[in-house]
This record gives sequence, C-alpha cells and structure tokens, in this order.
Amino acid sequence: MNLSQVGEFGLINLLKKDLLPASPGVIAGIGDDAAVLQCAGDCWQLFTTDMLVEGIHFRLDWCDYADVGYKALAVNISDIAAMGGRPTHGVVSLALPEHIQVADVLAIYRGLREMAGLYQVNLVGGDTVKSPGPLVINIALLGEVPAGRAVYRSGAAPGDLIYTTGRLGTAAAGLYVLSHQVNCSPSLKEQLIKAHLRPVPRVAAGVLLAGLEGVSALDDNSDGLAAELREICSASSTGCLIWQKALPVLPAVSRLAGRLGTDILDWVMNGGEDYELLFTLRPKHRRAVEEALQRAAVPFTAIGVMLPAGEGLLLERPNGVREMINMRGYNHFAGSPAG
Amino acid sequence: MNLSQVGEFGLINLLKKDLLPASPGVIAGIGDDAAVLQCAGDCWQLFTTDMLVEGIHFRLDWCDYADVGYKALAVNISDIAAMGGRPTHGVVSLALPEHIQVADVLAIYRGLREMAGLYQVNLVGGDTVKSPGPLVINIALLGEVPAGRAVYRSGAAPGDLIYTTGRLGTAAAGLYVLSHQVNCSPSLKEQLIKAHLRPVPRVAAGVLLAGLEGVSALDDNSDGLAAELREICSASSTGCLIWQKALPVLPAVSRLAGRLGTDILDWVMNGGEDYELLFTLRPKHRRAVEEALQRAAVPFTAIGVMLPAGEGLLLERPNGVREMINMRGYNHFAGSPAG
Repeated sequence: MNLSQVGEFGLINLLKKDLLPASPGVIAGIGDDAAVLQCAGDCWQLFTTDMLVEGIHFRLDWCDYADVGYKALAVNISDIAAMGGRPTHGVVSLALPEHIQVADVLAIYRGLREMAGLYQVNLVGGDTVKSPGPLVINIALLGEVPAGRAVYRSGAAPGDLIYTTGRLGTAAAGLYVLSHQVNCSPSLKEQLIKAHLRPVPRVAAGVLLAGLEGVSALDDNSDGLAAELREICSASSTGCLIWQKALPVLPAVSRLAGRLGTDILDWVMNGGEDYELLFTLRPKHRRAVEEALQRAAVPFTAIGVMLPAGEGLLLERPNGVREMINMRGYNHFAGSPAG
Repeated sequence: MNLSQVGEFGLINLLKKDLLPASPGVIAGIGDDAAVLQCAGDCWQLFTTDMLVEGIHFRLDWCDYADVGYKALAVNISDIAAMGGRPTHGVVSLALPEHIQVADVLAIYRGLREMAGLYQVNLVGGDTVKSPGPLVINIALLGEVPAGRAVYRSGAAPGDLIYTTGRLGTAAAGLYVLSHQVNCSPSLKEQLIKAHLRPVPRVAAGVLLAGLEGVSALDDNSDGLAAELREICSASSTGCLIWQKALPVLPAVSRLAGRLGTDILDWVMNGGEDYELLFTLRPKHRRAVEEALQRAAVPFTAIGVMLPAGEGLLLERPNGVREMINMRGYNHFAGSPAG
C-alpha cells in the first residue's frame, strides 16, 4: 500500500496500535503534540521532535539559512506550548549537502540561537552528517509542565466553546507572497513573509491556559484549522461547528485574498503554519478564562462550539448555511501542496 | 570556507565557542556522546540524537528496512551507554521518499521496536514527513545515570590504562563483505554482516563501569578507534600509546583481512561502527575493575596507556617501533568513505 493511501494520520494510527504500546512512566505517548513523561519532582516532562526538509518545508530561494534554524526550533517550541508547557532543552541534527559553506551552517545556528534565546531553550547537543540530497534539520525538544497540568487534544466535549489565539491565514498569505508575483505594499509583504518564516510560538498563552480551570483541549495551528479541528474532534470523539464570520483574519490579509481572487477560507482552513493555539473551553469558565487572557494581553477569539460526534465537522457560512469542513489541511503523503 | 576544510570536529568547536554557551541546569552540553542535564531526584538525565541518511550511513540494497530502524536506535543507545547510562525514552523522525510503501515504514518500526524491546526503551513520539531525496531517520533519546556518575571523555590522565570491550574491526569487515564480492563461508559472512547491520550497544558494561572507582573516561567506538582515541585525548589533554599486538580482533577477521590483502589495522582504526566501549582506568583500580567485568561476563582487553599530551597519539607496532596513529577515522565532511 502506498503512503498516500493511508496518509500521515492513518500511519500514526497503525503505529500506535501495533508497534508502540503504552509503557510505565509514559503518561501520554505518540499521538499528541508532545509525549508526556513521568519524572521525579513536581513537573511532568514533555518530549517532542519535528523535522524540516528542504524542498518540502522550506526553499532556500525564499528564505535564508538563519530563517531555517529559527523556524525549525519555533515549530518544536510550539508543540511544547500546545501541551501547556515551557521548553527547556533541545538537540539539533543537520544533514548537510556537500555544497554548503561553514558560514551557512553558522547562520543556521544563529537562527536557532535567536529563537532559543527568546524562549530560554538550552541547545545541548546534536549530530551533523552529510546529505546526498536536501538539507534536513531535525530538532528534539524537552519541556516541562506542572504535574497533572498538561492539556491534551482529547479533552473536549460537546458544548465546549472553540477559541483561537491571534489571527489565522497570515502565514499562508506570506507563503503565497513568497511563491507568486504579488503587487502589494512592501511593508505588508514584509509582514506576511515574516509571519511565514519567523512564527512566534505561543508559550506564555499555553502556560496560562494550562493553569486555568475549564480549558479542555489544546493544539497548535501548524497544519491549518481544518486539520487541527479534525485532530481535536477525533481525539475527543466529538464534532464541531465553526462560525466563518468569527474567524480572526487581518483586514489586510482579507483584502489581499479578495484582490487575488483567493478564498480566504482556504488560507485559514488549509494554510497552516500560523502557530496560534486552538483551544476548547467549558462554557461556565468562559468569563474567567477570557479575563485571564485579556489581563495577559493574549489576543483570542471564540470561533465555534463543539458538537456531538454524529454532527461531523461543520462550517456556518455568513448566510447561516452549514456545510462540511473541507479537509485539505496539510497532511504529509496526501498529495496536497507543501506549506 | 567549505565544510571539508574544518571537518565535523572543527565545526563542533566553532559551535561550542560562539553559539551554544553553557547554561544553568546543563551539567555537560555539546561535545560528548550525550548531554547531561540536571533533574529532580537522584538521577541525571542524558539526551542524545543521531541521524542516519540513506546513501551515507546505509544502502537499501545492502540491508532491509527493519535493519535501518534497528541500527538507528542502536547507535543512539550506544551514545547513552558511552556516558554510563541506561536509555529511557526516544522519539523518531522519518523523512520518507515518495516511492516508499506502508509495509516498508512498518518494517522500519519493527526494527525500532525490536531494539527498543531489548533495552526497555519507550518510543513515545515522532514526526513523519516527505523527502524529495533519501530516506532519513533521526532518533533523539533520553537516558539516565545516577547523579554524579556520568563518565565523560575528558577524565583521562597520563598513566591511565586504555581498554576496549569486545572485538574491533568486525563491523568494518562486515561492510567490506557487503560492498565486495568476497569468497568466505556463509556463516562467517552472516556473522560479519550482522556485526555491521545489527550492532549490540554495551549498556550493561557502561552502567557497570560508571559505578566503579577509577574509570576515568568512556566513549563508544562508533567512528573507529583512531577517531575515538583522538576525542578522548583531545578532551582530556593527553596523548596515548596503543599496543598493536593487544588489539582484540576475531581470528576469522584477521585471516580474512590477510587473505584479502587488507590491513586489519585499517578496519580497527578507521572502520568504526563496532559500538564497543573504549575506556580509561587509573592503574591502581585495575584489579577491581577487571574482576568486576569478569564477574559480569563483559569481554575486555587492555590495549594501551595514556601519555602526556606532548607525546601525541602513538601506535606500537609488533616489532616495537612506535609511529603516529593515522587519523582517517570516519569524520563527516573530511572526504573519507562512508561506513
């Protein structure tokens, strides 16, 4: 069977079922943003890894080496944030094509170091090998969360409200600007490209949410809203309803999409890489959680509500019509375009 | 500057100096087999990562997918053993070429699972992405060692005895058999190829050595004896003398090298991938350590003695002549052949 027939999620399910049994000391293994490990003391340890491959996740004619290092660490930090944790220690593996220069490798590390400095991550080791093909960077990252406080994808229930931090679709707009000749102001272009190349993981928001009552599920928006909703709904055995009118998008991004004849919903649902946090909330905790987010100056928007599983994953159009959410969120091996 | 001009070790030194400063909570960062992290409780945590790339570290016409998974985890476990620790939890990243089948990926995981089962490693997560080029597998592995008991490369002093576990050159002979038409008995061929494809990390020996007084430095023989000696001598600011006559080699491997007209010393010094442990020992603890290894049925051989740094790295030939050790041990980017 070909990989595109099972897809990334199908593969994870195969692996979970047959090959990677649960073990003592492992509070949560494969299948969430990070594994959760028992450890001595009053913290749980988080452990995640993400690999970026040249030509799939980035193109060196669209970014520089420092951007690659920066983003590779940022997406791992976002996985820790998506469990409600803080990152602590990381290791970096690089497969380097023959032609690469020492200055290029040092630039990758400058990007890594910049991101590491922003989030107090200690880069403590790594491996550097030759590649006969693309540049590959893999990071494995540890984090910590107070014992009992990790937030999974699986805790949502029908009736819970669905929120996102920040704005959606900005990174997808940045990718579009990088990959097309787009006529827009240099400052907007720069802002959108930065959103794509230099995402800002929501660690403070994740830590805050993990400490609040009523936050029932948490995920980071790496693969597009549609894919993340599917993950939460699948893990929680629920459906969901998203209100299109509520989706937070930068006005300049909406206007750009309109001008280009692109469906803004496609950028939001399928673009991914915004690295915002998607979370669900028991309605009775709504006021307390919203006030806490406001006090912490974390931008957030309620974008929908969880439904019973039988309802499926629905989008309410501005005219009130409900339709199934189109599942084209980025999924390795499913043949959709790279982000 | 090209990478081949600085080499892997030069690159690590550049990174250590400028980009990866020491941090609180990090007992030992980049530059040994694994990082050593402070953690709550009476253990230190070990953290390592190793990446294997198709065409560089393995060829799929010489091994099957299960071998790739098995070895990728084995080499990481060996890094933990080389600090005196036990492995605990791992995460696996795979970059998969388009043509790969689901059955192939499951075979990689069967190999991983087999190795994980032998050493009680919990595989708790990972990342699976597309590759436009070679298959790439990266593993990051955690381990633990009693607090204060990690053994570094840097602890050797002139006068310390140098030991290796097991036999050297066997994996190099296996690689030779895989890559050449060699006329030898099927059972020998199988044994040698297995040494190359299915190395056995020395976890029990590492844990034992870390608990004994007088063991001053420890490393695993992944890149060949010459490279590992250089690492210990460089980290410890010493020289060394190796007695060629003492080097432990399987008689069948010696005979094969002789028959092929290959210098067995090249396999031992530069072949690598035996994943035996190389360690140094204060002479006054010799009897106690040797007895402990014998009781634990760990095969070992004294192969030399540490010298002051000014003496360099020397090999004593069987005729008593001393010469400098030829530094061709496998080093990425230095242009030597892949192992």
